[in-house]
Amino acid sequence: MTLFSKNPALSALFAKHGEALCRSEGLSPDTVREHINRGTMVLLGNPAHPGVRPVLVGQPSRIKVNANIGTSPLRNDAGAEMAKLAAALEAGADTVMDLSIAGDLDAIRSRMLAECPAPVGTVPLYAAAQGYISADRDPSALTTEDILGEIRKQAAQGVDFMTVHCGLTARAAAWATDEGSRVLGIVSRGGSILARWIRVSGQENPFLTHFDAIVSIAREYNVTLSLGDGLRPGAGSDAGDAAQWDEVIMLGQLARRAREQGVQCLIEGPGHVRLHEVETQIRGIKTLCNGAPLYVLGPLVIDSCPGYDHIAGAIGAAAAVRAGADFLCYLTPAEHLTLPDLEDVRAGVMASRIAAQAGEVALGRAHALEREASMSVARAALDWPGMQDAALDPGVFCAKRAEHANEDVCAMCGDYCAVRMLQD
Amino acid sequence: MTLFSKNPALSALFAKHGEALCRSEGLSPDTVREHINRGTMVLLGNPAHPGVRPVLVGQPSRIKVNANIGTSPLRNDAGAEMAKLAAALEAGADTVMDLSIAGDLDAIRSRMLAECPAPVGTVPLYAAAQGYISADRDPSALTTEDILGEIRKQAAQGVDFMTVHCGLTARAAAWATDEGSRVLGIVSRGGSILARWIRVSGQENPFLTHFDAIVSIAREYNVTLSLGDGLRPGAGSDAGDAAQWDEVIMLGQLARRAREQGVQCLIEGPGHVRLHEVETQIRGIKTLCNGAPLYVLGPLVIDSCPGYDHIAGAIGAAAAVRAGADFLCYLTPAEHLTLPDLEDVRAGVMASRIAAQAGEVALGRAHALEREASMSVARAALDWPGMQDAALDPGVFCAKRAEHANEDVCAMCGDYCAVRMLQD
Repeated sequence: MTLFSKNPALSALFAKHGEALCRSEGLSPDTVREHINRGTMVLLGNPAHPGVRPVLVGQPSRIKVNANIGTSPLRNDAGAEMAKLAAALEAGADTVMDLSIAGDLDAIRSRMLAECPAPVGTVPLYAAAQGYISADRDPSALTTEDILGEIRKQAAQGVDFMTVHCGLTARAAAWATDEGSRVLGIVSRGGSILARWIRVSGQENPFLTHFDAIVSIAREYNVTLSLGDGLRPGAGSDAGDAAQWDEVIMLGQLARRAREQGVQCLIEGPGHVRLHEVETQIRGIKTLCNGAPLYVLGPLVIDSCPGYDHIAGAIGAAAAVRAGADFLCYLTPAEHLTLPDLEDVRAGVMASRIAAQAGEVALGRAHALEREASMSVARAALDWPGMQDAALDPGVFCAKRAEHANEDVCAMCGDYCAVRMLQD
Repeated sequence: MTLFSKNPALSALFAKHGEALCRSEGLSPDTVREHINRGTMVLLGNPAHPGVRPVLVGQPSRIKVNANIGTSPLRNDAGAEMAKLAAALEAGADTVMDLSIAGDLDAIRSRMLAECPAPVGTVPLYAAAQGYISADRDPSALTTEDILGEIRKQAAQGVDFMTVHCGLTARAAAWATDEGSRVLGIVSRGGSILARWIRVSGQENPFLTHFDAIVSIAREYNVTLSLGDGLRPGAGSDAGDAAQWDEVIMLGQLARRAREQGVQCLIEGPGHVRLHEVETQIRGIKTLCNGAPLYVLGPLVIDSCPGYDHIAGAIGAAAAVRAGADFLCYLTPAEHLTLPDLEDVRAGVMASRIAAQAGEVALGRAHALEREASMSVARAALDWPGMQDAALDPGVFCAKRAEHANEDVCAMCGDYCAVRMLQD
């Protein structure tokens, strides 16, 4: 039996949207079906999400970009998050994650699902832990029912994909936090809550021990499980250690187990990885996870440019796409410093789209090369409207030229324009 | 005889500044001398530039960043360019090029040299052509004496390095512009003027035919010749063609000829190069030019993100540094659109510094790794002042956190801070 045949919600979704999606991706329905059955592509879309426009993730479908938004205790304004949602979609984000950790989380999520036609992702552990953390209670008192109940509720609400840190084991959490191991221990919020839970309870990660129950909820709603990397490196010097790879190995095993039960999975990847190690990391993770779509956060090739992490992340992401990564979680200029504002959201989405284009051009993808060719042909003809059409961000193109929009050359070169110099 | 012994101005400069420079680079004077004699490192500094602080370029000395400023016919305000000079230096540019093409070029250059302790570069062809272009006369009427006179004048003024497009040959210019060859022909301003000159006159490139005269002027003032790539690709699809490599081959030959006459050379590199071709390009150029320091413009890994070329350039530059590039010419968000403003200048310098750090971390350079380690250690301790110190841009770090500078966690995570979660 195939994954499709075990997941009626997915089959219905594909029957409704598959043809249009395949056309827009330039792939045949058979190719896409085969990839989905093999687990090397996923179709994000929960039928309970009203008006969802499903999205394919996994090469050779186009690289997709996710924008993280959501409230925090120090910046808790649901309205501002809705404005960021609109900005992210306008800038070209393919999906959005609601990472809210303050305020009425159910209400925010519900509003987000209503206003966002793109697939919406969450980290249910955040909401499950909120009752504890916001009341100054120890989140290690979290129960399995807190977790499963939250997942069930969010699935019924329509959440399309969920980060679940199922691959973090007690031994690997210890490896990551033992004295003298990493410089930066655990930097994933979900990972740190689970590591604390494990340390206090003396038990194994409840997401791991109750994995099949999670899978069963996910199948009902075609929720794609985004297998979280709770032990991802938080410093370039921590990348590639035993803790990280132990978790990757587990994620690969769990992705297979989910697939066998008809549930789609993404694999979440690093994190902080130096440029010369990006290819090794990406190929290693892809191999251990049987080619499941890889959803990367950066990777950040340096640690030392807070305020510009969208650029350090774009450098890593371009290399990662070239090596096989499928799905880019944006990083904004606010990363490591504060909650992003509207401008940060736009900058983050654009930097990820640039990285995606750079990687896809290097891979020779037709749609990416067509855009490049359009730009070059327009430049050779000094065809400014043509350049604007070919630009990843026509709005910024237009704004930068506003002052001299009627000139046939740019204000950098003027009469020294190289193209015009050789025209006659 | 060594390069040093043939170049008294260089010897005097090294005698005065060498010790301090070597200390700051973490290299021994013998190592630096050997590199300079072999032509794999250059010491930028013209003794006629008052108060110049010389700069070493060439790995294993640190990667350096150049900022291009200067007037244009559509934005001709010398005062604004002086403000950009200050902004570029404040953001951490190691050198500045005055690419002015409008206004009183001698006066602007003279003011720039007086106010800029960093080495200043120029493209003398721009000034030589100004009398023609600004008067609507054909720049192909330029004479050899126009060119040599301009070079001589600027050398005496104190210009530290000069772009001279000596390697562009008549046959390669034709290859680049023949019907059906490149999408984008010639995009270098200098290259296009020379190609026009060659086409109209039917003669070979005067910078090539008078190369020894140029070398002789350069030696007198220790002007470093930056051998320009007038045929650099202006589109990713044009990279790596016969025109480009013919010029690179010539640049390698000319660099050797200059070195034999006691003159230091940089090699200018691309340009628009797709990510998967960056390493091949960089290593190829380095090999053909006997390891002479490589000064790259980007490379831009995609053509389709005007408004964000500093990011596309940072992706290419990080890969280029890893492959051996030594000197990064910044690209700003204004590239391909307009003259940069102050904010563009800052963004361009920072993006290049990020790329340099990414490349140097990948190469394992001690100073780069130290910065990374400082950041990670500070993060593990939630030591915000320590993070600010380690940041490439402490000012932006500070500004982003201004609203909640007194919190011990950031406004993104608040009580969900992963570091604090595991502290007790």
